[in-house]
Amino acid sequence: MENNYICELEQIVNPENVITSFEERLTYSYDSTRLEYMPDVVVRVKNAEQISQIMKLANEYKIPVTPRGAATGLSGGCLAVEGGILLVMVDMNRIIDINPVDLLITVEAGVITEKVSKAVEHLNLFYPPDPGSMKSSTIGGNIAENAGGLRGLKYGVTKDYVNSIEAVLPTGEIVTMGANTVKAVTGYNLADLMCGSEGTLSIITRATLGLLPIPPDRVSILAFFKDMTDAAKTVRDIVAGGVITATLEIVDNVTINAIEDFLKIGLDRTVGAMLLIEVDGQKGAIEAEADIVIRTCKSNSVLSVRQAKSVQERDKLWEARRAALSSLSRIRPSTILEDATVPRSRMVELVNAINEIAKKYQMMIGTFGHAGDGNLHPTILTDLRIAEEAKKTEKAIEEIFKATIALGGTLSGEHGIGITKAQYLKLEISKPVYNLMKNIKSVFDPNNILNPGKMKCTWDI
Amino acid sequence: MENNYICELEQIVNPENVITSFEERLTYSYDSTRLEYMPDVVVRVKNAEQISQIMKLANEYKIPVTPRGAATGLSGGCLAVEGGILLVMVDMNRIIDINPVDLLITVEAGVITEKVSKAVEHLNLFYPPDPGSMKSSTIGGNIAENAGGLRGLKYGVTKDYVNSIEAVLPTGEIVTMGANTVKAVTGYNLADLMCGSEGTLSIITRATLGLLPIPPDRVSILAFFKDMTDAAKTVRDIVAGGVITATLEIVDNVTINAIEDFLKIGLDRTVGAMLLIEVDGQKGAIEAEADIVIRTCKSNSVLSVRQAKSVQERDKLWEARRAALSSLSRIRPSTILEDATVPRSRMVELVNAINEIAKKYQMMIGTFGHAGDGNLHPTILTDLRIAEEAKKTEKAIEEIFKATIALGGTLSGEHGIGITKAQYLKLEISKPVYNLMKNIKSVFDPNNILNPGKMKCTWDI
Repeated sequence: MENNYICELEQIVNPENVITSFEERLTYSYDSTRLEYMPDVVVRVKNAEQISQIMKLANEYKIPVTPRGAATGLSGGCLAVEGGILLVMVDMNRIIDINPVDLLITVEAGVITEKVSKAVEHLNLFYPPDPGSMKSSTIGGNIAENAGGLRGLKYGVTKDYVNSIEAVLPTGEIVTMGANTVKAVTGYNLADLMCGSEGTLSIITRATLGLLPIPPDRVSILAFFKDMTDAAKTVRDIVAGGVITATLEIVDNVTINAIEDFLKIGLDRTVGAMLLIEVDGQKGAIEAEADIVIRTCKSNSVLSVRQAKSVQERDKLWEARRAALSSLSRIRPSTILEDATVPRSRMVELVNAINEIAKKYQMMIGTFGHAGDGNLHPTILTDLRIAEEAKKTEKAIEEIFKATIALGGTLSGEHGIGITKAQYLKLEISKPVYNLMKNIKSVFDPNNILNPGKMKCTWDI
Repeated sequence: MENNYICELEQIVNPENVITSFEERLTYSYDSTRLEYMPDVVVRVKNAEQISQIMKLANEYKIPVTPRGAATGLSGGCLAVEGGILLVMVDMNRIIDINPVDLLITVEAGVITEKVSKAVEHLNLFYPPDPGSMKSSTIGGNIAENAGGLRGLKYGVTKDYVNSIEAVLPTGEIVTMGANTVKAVTGYNLADLMCGSEGTLSIITRATLGLLPIPPDRVSILAFFKDMTDAAKTVRDIVAGGVITATLEIVDNVTINAIEDFLKIGLDRTVGAMLLIEVDGQKGAIEAEADIVIRTCKSNSVLSVRQAKSVQERDKLWEARRAALSSLSRIRPSTILEDATVPRSRMVELVNAINEIAKKYQMMIGTFGHAGDGNLHPTILTDLRIAEEAKKTEKAIEEIFKATIALGGTLSGEHGIGITKAQYLKLEISKPVYNLMKNIKSVFDPNNILNPGKMKCTWDI
């Protein structure tokens, strides 16, 4: 039977797109979580029709199918945890249509996020969601995970820019969900249900995304504080003061030192925290906003605060921020990036809780993140090969999530649940809601063959 | 058995909140569609616990339950089309919490939309969604219908401001969906699925909504054109020119005359169309934007264009726009307000199609709406008591919707499907997607007792 289905796959996509060798499959066995699950066969697809045929075949033989974009995900969404077919989407990378009057772009799922903005730059337009992985992540993966990014506070997340989706249902039908109008309320809001469904409800093949005019100007501000508490208070006060900044990023001392080790750009290694703030908009308006930001920093005992003086300096600052994770990951063999998110007003408490947990377990935790969104990335630097370290890490993670939930927060702001956070799901999701989720999954995927084993609550395990 | 359940209802909510008299039930038998369906019993509820008990009872006896806010809906969402229990939500009207740091407000479902903004005005905050009925509609109804409004282009619709929802499931469980953080991707996006579900999936009892700082300044511009085509072209060019206006409303000659008959504010009765435009933001920025708007009007053969000179004049203009529907409804015995929405780039074609249809059937159609969103409200003025007129009306409506879909549009931008548009659903929704909708409905409501008979596709009838 197994040979049968490989032959049938070769008929659907041609033999050169069906990969069965151990070595090649190995390269498709991991994602950015560094966990590994080996697929039985890797299939590179080119269009929705092929995927439709594969899903019909997979239902017939009850073979798991897992779609995979660029594998930049941080919760294991594209890992073939139950083996079966790994569907590689990256060849579906065409930009289908650009519509500047309706501020829309239609792309295939495998288009790289950054290329969407690049494709409309000459029209003075941009695609706002900017996940940290935007240089390599794909739009299909971004939609599946409802990816966030640095500009979330002012511009929202992926779902806020998804107008319509073409997708293949687990049962093989090719469907369209949503509408390409500014407003649409015809039928249930299924396009938004796909956003953040982690590739478990349908295989997204194409999307029509919203665009915005590029703001005429922007100003970046860099501020140093003696500790994370002062920085977090400043964040709270900036937003409460009526300024919705484009980005409002926080970086702690551990992370500042890691970045400085890596990039050597002259950051002050002694400060407790740094805020990187950008306001954008019309020229006069953003200068007024920058003034408010600087005044708010000063009223929270800022050590120093200044505006980037040139485009070069501004770009260097943002490069430093984007290097936070890769800088931290050089320190110890294992880097566990978490995604705790609380209401902005509770961020000081979350920062304190993380510090307490680091002290308690004597662990190194670097914290950075989207402070304006209350979305922190406490990053545990450890060595999971050492049993004791692994055990401590697990305990620390659980405590961070318990603190997050106790502060009215959520397990994941933008990375998803997948397999890495599934065991904590029951801290946040009540049993009736989890049952709704399971039953909705069955509606879409009666044989449970699409991306099985994800978001599994421990009640079920 | 029937008496039994009335007695049990009286035990749950006290006898004075159970209404069975014909006269009183009659006042709950209609909504703003002016269709009438008589409920068997009307129950005024005060909290989620009562609703939970009622839903358990209703499942036991298989009695339909229809939730009702202020009954301002335009698609029949709160009509008890299969009789049973009508659940009146307006006593659940408390503002529970205002959180200016997190820009959030928590309200019960029966709170009137306008009161949300009024409650936070002193904090210099506002709740952006502003449906035409905001002075009387409730937040619960707004969420159920995913209500739009005049500010949709720049500020989005109701779903863009719903952080979390407390709801009673049709099976009686009280649950929370969503999270009160800026970003959240824990589990399926059920809060957004509730938005626009037309009260068929759960009974919304409480919601935490997002707020924004009030823009420091705004400018209103009034422009007259010889015809709707010139006005629609102007709309297209304003947005394509990079200005995202707060509102961009279009009003045709029929509607201008109706408003003038009603309000006598000195509008020019001879012009073919009028645009009412508002830009908001920082002072310097909006003046620059207003300049672009005025220049764009001039390059599209505007007859006259001017800025409102005072707050009084500005308020008078918007009062005129908000009076469009009530002004039109004075002309003929029956007013059929439609909700056709197309991509902005196709609006000129939709306007032309509506004019053709009006000519073909010799009907009076007044058209106004949210031009920036491509969301028009062609309003048929007719007399449905005359059989021939009713027949013509039905044909005209069907042709309007067919034209809308042919232009890449959607049946409803903001009013919903309910019962008034259910017969056209199959023009837009494919059978596999409709089957998903039906099966999702069964997941939430296995006995099909919550608001039955809505969004029913004609395949099923």
